[in-house]
Amino acid sequence: MAVDDPGPTLAEAGEFAVIDRLVTGRPQPAFVTLGPGDDSAVVAAPDGRTVVCTDMLVQDRHFRLDWSTPFDVGRKAVAQNAADVEAMGARCTALVVGFGAPAVTPVAQAVALADGMWHEAGLLGAAIVGGDMVAAPQWVISVAALGDLGGRDPVRRSGARPGDLVAVAGRLGNSEAGYVLLRGGVAGHDDLRRAHLVPEPPYGQGVAAAQAGATAMTDVSDGLLADLGHVAAASQVHIDLSRDALGVFAAPLADAAAATGSDPLQWVLGGGEDHALVATFAAACPPGWHRIGSVAEGAGQVSVDGRPWSGRAGWQSF
Amino acid sequence: MAVDDPGPTLAEAGEFAVIDRLVTGRPQPAFVTLGPGDDSAVVAAPDGRTVVCTDMLVQDRHFRLDWSTPFDVGRKAVAQNAADVEAMGARCTALVVGFGAPAVTPVAQAVALADGMWHEAGLLGAAIVGGDMVAAPQWVISVAALGDLGGRDPVRRSGARPGDLVAVAGRLGNSEAGYVLLRGGVAGHDDLRRAHLVPEPPYGQGVAAAQAGATAMTDVSDGLLADLGHVAAASQVHIDLSRDALGVFAAPLADAAAATGSDPLQWVLGGGEDHALVATFAAACPPGWHRIGSVAEGAGQVSVDGRPWSGRAGWQSF
Repeated sequence: MAVDDPGPTLAEAGEFAVIDRLVTGRPQPAFVTLGPGDDSAVVAAPDGRTVVCTDMLVQDRHFRLDWSTPFDVGRKAVAQNAADVEAMGARCTALVVGFGAPAVTPVAQAVALADGMWHEAGLLGAAIVGGDMVAAPQWVISVAALGDLGGRDPVRRSGARPGDLVAVAGRLGNSEAGYVLLRGGVAGHDDLRRAHLVPEPPYGQGVAAAQAGATAMTDVSDGLLADLGHVAAASQVHIDLSRDALGVFAAPLADAAAATGSDPLQWVLGGGEDHALVATFAAACPPGWHRIGSVAEGAGQVSVDGRPWSGRAGWQSF
Repeated sequence: MAVDDPGPTLAEAGEFAVIDRLVTGRPQPAFVTLGPGDDSAVVAAPDGRTVVCTDMLVQDRHFRLDWSTPFDVGRKAVAQNAADVEAMGARCTALVVGFGAPAVTPVAQAVALADGMWHEAGLLGAAIVGGDMVAAPQWVISVAALGDLGGRDPVRRSGARPGDLVAVAGRLGNSEAGYVLLRGGVAGHDDLRRAHLVPEPPYGQGVAAAQAGATAMTDVSDGLLADLGHVAAASQVHIDLSRDALGVFAAPLADAAAATGSDPLQWVLGGGEDHALVATFAAACPPGWHRIGSVAEGAGQVSVDGRPWSGRAGWQSF
């Protein structure tokens, strides 16, 4: 095999040989009663409930293969689902993966994608327990994640109450900053470009928030204002954010914003895909969380220093 | 709105308005602790385990919108996942759905797709508890299904033993017959064309087989020979099918086969997508199952009347 030979394609290797290659040698944790290789998997649900969610990523819409390695795409696909499980106050335990790709895709790229998924699952103590691989005109990755609530109630979007404080764990605005830098071909700020390619949700902080009595929680996938808008609407409250308090997130973005003619606070308020967690607490927030605002009586609005934000609230799917 | 006006598109309505339209008014059964509308759903797992599987369908690969209505596509997407749950001897309880489609897709088509999914879920007593909707160049539907084992062990592919009998519940070859009729534009045989567009797995027979002591089970998604090949390999046995016994499946296909120059037995042995269940039993098979062969000592082969089948074993994904 020549150095540049990408090796056999999915079509040349065949579906089942590729699946064997993706599955073999991946140890499954004890809570996986039955792993990949049968019609379905079986996963323990120790408290008699299962948390479940799904997210789909489409090539050139949610990732670009000229920006991201397949390993990074795999990490991102798992991370954004795991964040949805964390946002309920649960721990991600298991994932199933649908992967569509052209028949000419090198097997090595599918393996790198799976390696990235397993790497991210390893950060969670979770396992990939099943999947489906099909031919498609472009890459499409659909992940469904299961989670364990550990006997606690799920933390819903609808539980915020007037008088609560609002706090964030994780990063805000970094992914959008990275996107603007990548799109503009602006050098430097490697950490921000990296943040766009591979989100790093604050794993474990969903459970920590639930244990600390979080009244409502969501992950920041579309943008802080947009996602808090769902909390404000579901809870029928008014959420007010403090521009000063958000400075801790905006300040590290100032240089990149200046280099691209952007507003760092807009990135913090409207940028999605960092998969930070934002939650409301009746009293103090736990370690690792940063207070950014408060909850008042109202009917579903979100404001900044008492006024509506004039900029973009977040990502639009269509 | 004019009679032919397809109404607003996904882009015109916006993601969240469409999701509201898809979710509103769908009653969730009591075992759904938390339905759609939050970061994740929560589903009861009464025996402390969850069965989970996933399947992805890509437009023009797994369905054609000039052959199938969106309602039919929705039924098919749920049915093929539910069959993978049934094949473990479990009951499908809940599903999550990823849906990718062009921004110009009429909302009414997305609603019809969801209606079809809910119709099929209703046949199962299951619920659609969450999803994700994204822009994509063509329709892509990814479903993950959860299931309940009711305290029983999962029926794996690896449990077939020499001396067992092999039996089928459901239809064989009808979907491929329908595909050949549709592709050739051959009139008549509406039931077979319909079988290709909407599979009708024998819901409930997976649990019935498990209760009757099935030693191994799988669903026929790729083709009887291909899928039994996985059972034979996993169980390290030789499975021999009886051409005579398969006649009950082939005979009703004879007219359609003659009209298209096809071999009805090839359809029965190599045609996928009917999502019949095939299982092995140590003694008798339960009502609703039809004996088609037997299990002998061996190393993973499947034969017909003692000889390898010379035709196609099943569908290739790439």
